[in-house]
Amino acid sequence: MSARSIIAKIRSAGTASSWARDALCHIEADRHLNCFTAVLETRATEMAARIDAEPHRFPLAGLPFAAKDLFDVAGRPTLAGSRINLDHPPARRDATAIGRLTDAGANLVGLTNMDEYAYGFSTENAHYGPTRNPHDPTRIAGGSSGGSAAAVAAGIVPAALGSDTNGSIRVPASLCGIYGLKATYGRLSRGGSFPFVADLDHIGPLARDLNLLAVVYDHLQGPDPLDPACAERPCDLVAPLLERSLPDLQVGVLEGWFRQGASDEALAAVDHVASAFPQIRKVVLEGTEAARSAAFCLTGMAGGSLHANRLKNRAMDFDPAVRDRLLAGLMLPANLTFQARRVRRKFMREAVDLFREVDVLLAPATPCTAPRIGESTVMIAGREIPVRANLGLYTQPISFIGLPVIAAPVRLPGLPIGVQIIGPPWGEVKIFQAAAILERSGRVGTTALPSRGEAST
Amino acid sequence: MSARSIIAKIRSAGTASSWARDALCHIEADRHLNCFTAVLETRATEMAARIDAEPHRFPLAGLPFAAKDLFDVAGRPTLAGSRINLDHPPARRDATAIGRLTDAGANLVGLTNMDEYAYGFSTENAHYGPTRNPHDPTRIAGGSSGGSAAAVAAGIVPAALGSDTNGSIRVPASLCGIYGLKATYGRLSRGGSFPFVADLDHIGPLARDLNLLAVVYDHLQGPDPLDPACAERPCDLVAPLLERSLPDLQVGVLEGWFRQGASDEALAAVDHVASAFPQIRKVVLEGTEAARSAAFCLTGMAGGSLHANRLKNRAMDFDPAVRDRLLAGLMLPANLTFQARRVRRKFMREAVDLFREVDVLLAPATPCTAPRIGESTVMIAGREIPVRANLGLYTQPISFIGLPVIAAPVRLPGLPIGVQIIGPPWGEVKIFQAAAILERSGRVGTTALPSRGEAST
Repeated sequence: MSARSIIAKIRSAGTASSWARDALCHIEADRHLNCFTAVLETRATEMAARIDAEPHRFPLAGLPFAAKDLFDVAGRPTLAGSRINLDHPPARRDATAIGRLTDAGANLVGLTNMDEYAYGFSTENAHYGPTRNPHDPTRIAGGSSGGSAAAVAAGIVPAALGSDTNGSIRVPASLCGIYGLKATYGRLSRGGSFPFVADLDHIGPLARDLNLLAVVYDHLQGPDPLDPACAERPCDLVAPLLERSLPDLQVGVLEGWFRQGASDEALAAVDHVASAFPQIRKVVLEGTEAARSAAFCLTGMAGGSLHANRLKNRAMDFDPAVRDRLLAGLMLPANLTFQARRVRRKFMREAVDLFREVDVLLAPATPCTAPRIGESTVMIAGREIPVRANLGLYTQPISFIGLPVIAAPVRLPGLPIGVQIIGPPWGEVKIFQAAAILERSGRVGTTALPSRGEAST
Repeated sequence: MSARSIIAKIRSAGTASSWARDALCHIEADRHLNCFTAVLETRATEMAARIDAEPHRFPLAGLPFAAKDLFDVAGRPTLAGSRINLDHPPARRDATAIGRLTDAGANLVGLTNMDEYAYGFSTENAHYGPTRNPHDPTRIAGGSSGGSAAAVAAGIVPAALGSDTNGSIRVPASLCGIYGLKATYGRLSRGGSFPFVADLDHIGPLARDLNLLAVVYDHLQGPDPLDPACAERPCDLVAPLLERSLPDLQVGVLEGWFRQGASDEALAAVDHVASAFPQIRKVVLEGTEAARSAAFCLTGMAGGSLHANRLKNRAMDFDPAVRDRLLAGLMLPANLTFQARRVRRKFMREAVDLFREVDVLLAPATPCTAPRIGESTVMIAGREIPVRANLGLYTQPISFIGLPVIAAPVRLPGLPIGVQIIGPPWGEVKIFQAAAILERSGRVGTTALPSRGEAST
C-alpha cells in the first residue's frame, strides 16, 4: 500500500495548506489539554505552501505531525521539558527523524509536552503543567511522550513523534488509546534528539491509524552517522506488506510478571486480543523482575551522570520529582552498572530462546487505565501502589533488551488501555502483521472520544 | 612465508617429541625463574607423539608453547593466579586460543605465572611467588603476563599466550626484551579465558621471533561464538606479507603524555627506532591523560564488580594488593562508568583523526626498564613513582580504545626495553610491516641473554 493512498484515505479533500490550517485551529481549540509547548505556525504555513507548489515531490502530502519537545528543530533551543535548557543555543538543524519526515512532505506543526528530561510516566510537568487525557481531562495522558499521545488521540494531528527509554511511547499510547511503535534498539536514528540513557533510548511514531504508523515508520528507517547505535542495515518496509494476506502467527501470552499487579482491565485487554489468534500458548520469560530492576537502576545512574553538572549548578531549576530521582541515581555504586549489564545479557538470551517457539508475545502495556492528575498512588488489585514508577512495570523489561513493540489500543468499553505486541530483534514486520490481524478482527483500533462521538479511523 | 618454513628455521632438527622433551627439560633447568604454575608433561608428551605419527597434518610441527594460567585447559580448574579458584570445577575443554594452536600442531607444555586475576604489572604473586626476569633474576618480569614473557625470553618456549587489559602483554614483553602483540579489540577470541574487564580484555601472543609472532597470530584469528565481542570479519593473514617488499609508512612519534615521566632509556628507545623511518613526524594525541584515568577507574570498577561475591566471601584469600584495588573499585560511583565511556568515545575520535595523517604511531612501551623485585617505587627523571600503577602509563590509553599494538624489543645496550608500534583499528598488517622494517634495520629484535651469550633469533 502506498503512502499516497494511505494519506488520501486519512485526509479529507483539500490542500496541504488547508490541512495545516485545520491542525493549527485544532491546537487552539484543544488548548485546555495542554498538549503543546510550542506551536510552529510560520514554519507549518510555509512548508504547506511549498508542498502545494510541488505536490508530486511530497508523498506524505502535508500530513500534519507533532514532535515531542526533545527533538531538535532548527532555530530553537531543545527544551526536553526543562526550564534549564532555555539557556541552550538554538539547534542548527532539525533532528534526523524530523528531517526525514519533512523531506517526505510531512508538516511539523508543533512540539509537545513531556516529563522533564523524559524521566517520568505521567507528563505532569512542573514547569509547563500537566497534559490532560482527551478521554477524560481530569486524568493524565501518561508519559513521558504524553503531549504527543494526547495530540494524536484528540485528533489534532494524525501522527506524532515520541521517545521511549522505559516505556515513554507505549505508556501514553496505552492510556490515550492510540498506536505507538518502539522499534528494535538501533533501528531508528536518535540523531538530534536530547539524550537520556544511551543504551536504552529509542525514538518512534504514535498514530491513530495502523497503516499510517507503518508509513511513518518506513520513512524514519535508515542508518545515520549522527547516531552511532543506528544500525547499517537494509530498511524493512512494512506498509506495503499490510495489504497482503497475513500469515498465521504463533503467539505467546506472557504470564508471571506480566500478570502480577495488573488491574482487571489490563488482564481483560490481553485476554481479549489473545482470543483473536487460533494458536496461542502461555509462556514465561524468566528473569523479568531482575531485568526491570536493572533497567530502573541503569536509568537513574545514566540519567544522574548525564545531568551531573546541571544538578551541581542548577539544582533548584529542576522539576523536584525528577531532581530527586537523578540525585538518587548519582549516588549508586559502579557495581550496579556492571550487574545491570550481566542481567541484560542473561535476559536477552532468555528472550531469544522464547522467540524460537513463538513469532510474537502479548503483554499488557500498562497495569491500569489513566490515573487522575495529581494522584500519586493508584489502587490495583486491592494494593495501593505509586503511580509514576509503576506505569512502566510491563514496558521497562522489554525496552531494556531493545525488542520491537507496538502498543495497540484495545477496543473494550471504558477508559482506553493498550497491549504490547512484542517481536524478536529486528522483527518489526511480525509485530505489524500481528497488529493488522487484530485490527481486522475488530479487537484493536483507536478508541473514539466519548465527548465527540467521533468515529475512529 | 609458510608456517612450516618459519617453524623449520626456528627448531633445530628433530621430532615433535624431542622438541617437547627439550622444552620440558628447560622448564626444569630454569625453575628458579618461577615462570610456570603448572607443567603439562603428560599432555605435551602425548601430543608430541600424535604429531610425530602424522606430521603432515600439523603445520606448527610440535612448536612448544606456554599459556598464561587464565586460559582454560581441559581437566584443570583455571586459577588466574588466584588461590580461590582452586575450588573451581575443572574446565571442560581448552580455551579457544589454545584449541586453535593445538589443532595446528603447537604443543602446550605449561601454564605461566601472573598477577592475581591479571590485576597488576609486576607478576609478584602473593601465592605463587614472583617471576624473575631472565636478564637479571633480581628484577621483575613485568605483568600480568610475566610468566609467559619470561619463559619466552629465557628461550624455554619460542612463543606463549598472554592477555592484555591495560598493558599486560606489552609491559612484560618490554621488560623481558621480546615481541608481544595486542591485536584490535574483538580480533582474537577470549573464549574460555578468565575475564577481567569485558570492554578492555584482549588475548594475544608473545614470541622471540617476529615471523613466529605473525604465524601464531594468524592461527589465532577467526570469529568465535564463545566471545560475543569477537568480530565476524575475514582473517587478515600477516605472515605471508612479511617476506614481500615492505611499503613506505608514514610514522608518527607520540609526544606529550608519551614522553612525560619517561626515563632516558625509554626515550632513547623510541628515538632509536624512529630514526629508521625516512618520514616521521611528531604528533600529539589529545585527551590521553583523561583516557588513562578513565581506563584506570573502569578497570577497578569492572574488576570490583566481577569479584564482588568473592570479596564478600573470601576476602582474606586474595592477594592483599589486588584485594585493596578491587575494593576501591567497588566503592566508586556509577557516574564514573558513564564518564569513562564519554571519555573513550571522544578519545577514539581523536585517535581516528590522527590516523588520517599517519600509518602507525610510536610510543614507549614502559616508562623504564625492569625494577627490582620487591621495590614498590622507582626513580624516573628524578621523581620517585609507584611501580605497579605506573608501568602501564603508556599502554593503558591505547588498549582503552582497542587499537592494535606490537611491543617490539629495542636493540640498545643495557636492560631490555620495548616500544609500542600502534595501528589504527584493524590495522594489524601495518604494525607488522612497521616491525619488519625495524627488524631489517637492526634496530629491534629479541635481546640476547647476557649470562648465556645466546644469539638472538
